[in-house]
Amino acid sequence: MKILPKSIEKLIESFEKLPGIGPKTAQRLTFYLLHVPQHELDSFADAIRSLAANTKICSRCFNVGEDDPCAVCASLDRDESTIMVVESPIDVLIIERSGKFRGLYHVLHGAISPLQNIGPEEIRIYELVERLKKGDKIKELIIATNSNMEGEATAMYIKSEISKLKSPASRAGRQNSNLEELKITRIAKGLPVGGDLEYADDVTLGHALSGRISYE
Amino acid sequence: MKILPKSIEKLIESFEKLPGIGPKTAQRLTFYLLHVPQHELDSFADAIRSLAANTKICSRCFNVGEDDPCAVCASLDRDESTIMVVESPIDVLIIERSGKFRGLYHVLHGAISPLQNIGPEEIRIYELVERLKKGDKIKELIIATNSNMEGEATAMYIKSEISKLKSPASRAGRQNSNLEELKITRIAKGLPVGGDLEYADDVTLGHALSGRISYE
Repeated sequence: MKILPKSIEKLIESFEKLPGIGPKTAQRLTFYLLHVPQHELDSFADAIRSLAANTKICSRCFNVGEDDPCAVCASLDRDESTIMVVESPIDVLIIERSGKFRGLYHVLHGAISPLQNIGPEEIRIYELVERLKKGDKIKELIIATNSNMEGEATAMYIKSEISKLKSPASRAGRQNSNLEELKITRIAKGLPVGGDLEYADDVTLGHALSGRISYE
Repeated sequence: MKILPKSIEKLIESFEKLPGIGPKTAQRLTFYLLHVPQHELDSFADAIRSLAANTKICSRCFNVGEDDPCAVCASLDRDESTIMVVESPIDVLIIERSGKFRGLYHVLHGAISPLQNIGPEEIRIYELVERLKKGDKIKELIIATNSNMEGEATAMYIKSEISKLKSPASRAGRQNSNLEELKITRIAKGLPVGGDLEYADDVTLGHALSGRISYE
């Protein structure tokens, strides 16, 4: 005997495809929606269907926005000499909400991950290098990829690509003179604010120590 | 400056309305869907929109199904003398999957919860009582509401409503003679299978002891 109506089964399957949603949660969400009025279901469905249609990828920084260029790139109020490299548009959102950064972004849309068959060509590293070659005003590149294996591998790859451009061979051609002065930085690793030393792992503690700053 | 495109904001809001989905998860799910092909978004949206249109509430047991009566009620293969009372259609699904029950159901669509303004009138208790009054064949009512405060309150309320019908006053009228023999049971509470005694709470331990069964 078929227990579940097809429409319920289909929705459970759709929810299960989302990251972090297992079969039990998918069931719970679907059965919850059974009690939701139709106009709310319609508005939810519309939001999903029109997600891609109403968003654009910025051709300069590859952030997701309503227009191209995106709101950050279009703003006259940003420091164009600093570019922060992040893995995904959600990182832009989080850093913008913190209000701690006034420069521009470059969104990679992923990180290098050999296990998932994601190489440097699959993410926007080539576009970053091209942008740096052309951009006379860029003084600093802040690499803010995640602090996990994939994020670190991506950071190292970007560093080595830029070093190649700075090498004597390319210097001789004088094609990338604007890269000579480019400073590359990586966001700091250490104890999170509110974190107890007692609960920190060894690697984080190592970074917190080696990255210590003057406190006088 | 507006950071997020409207369509992204709208979808985050829709996800946030779901139970157990906080702002961070809503963000994560929305940004994940940005990378999903349009045909999958369309199929997800269709599943949500047509959820209510393609499901019916069974007029007998109030389970959710493709037709009315639902697949369980329509089956010729079920024991009509036993009715299990559950809070929601998802409970029917879970019990059907276990294959441990061959009777019929009665879905309350909720539990009594004064804090959430849900009284006995808001859930299908009246319909249950009417069904019991009319059903000559019903021999046992298994109350399988959840083992939390709301579920226990609902179980107690159902028991008292049925006792009223059995009282001498109504007996004199001989209107509910079929209820005389009705057995009311409650699902067992105790240690879950695979559970350690060490980690069980006191109340569960109490139930496990008081509900102990002969083991000879």
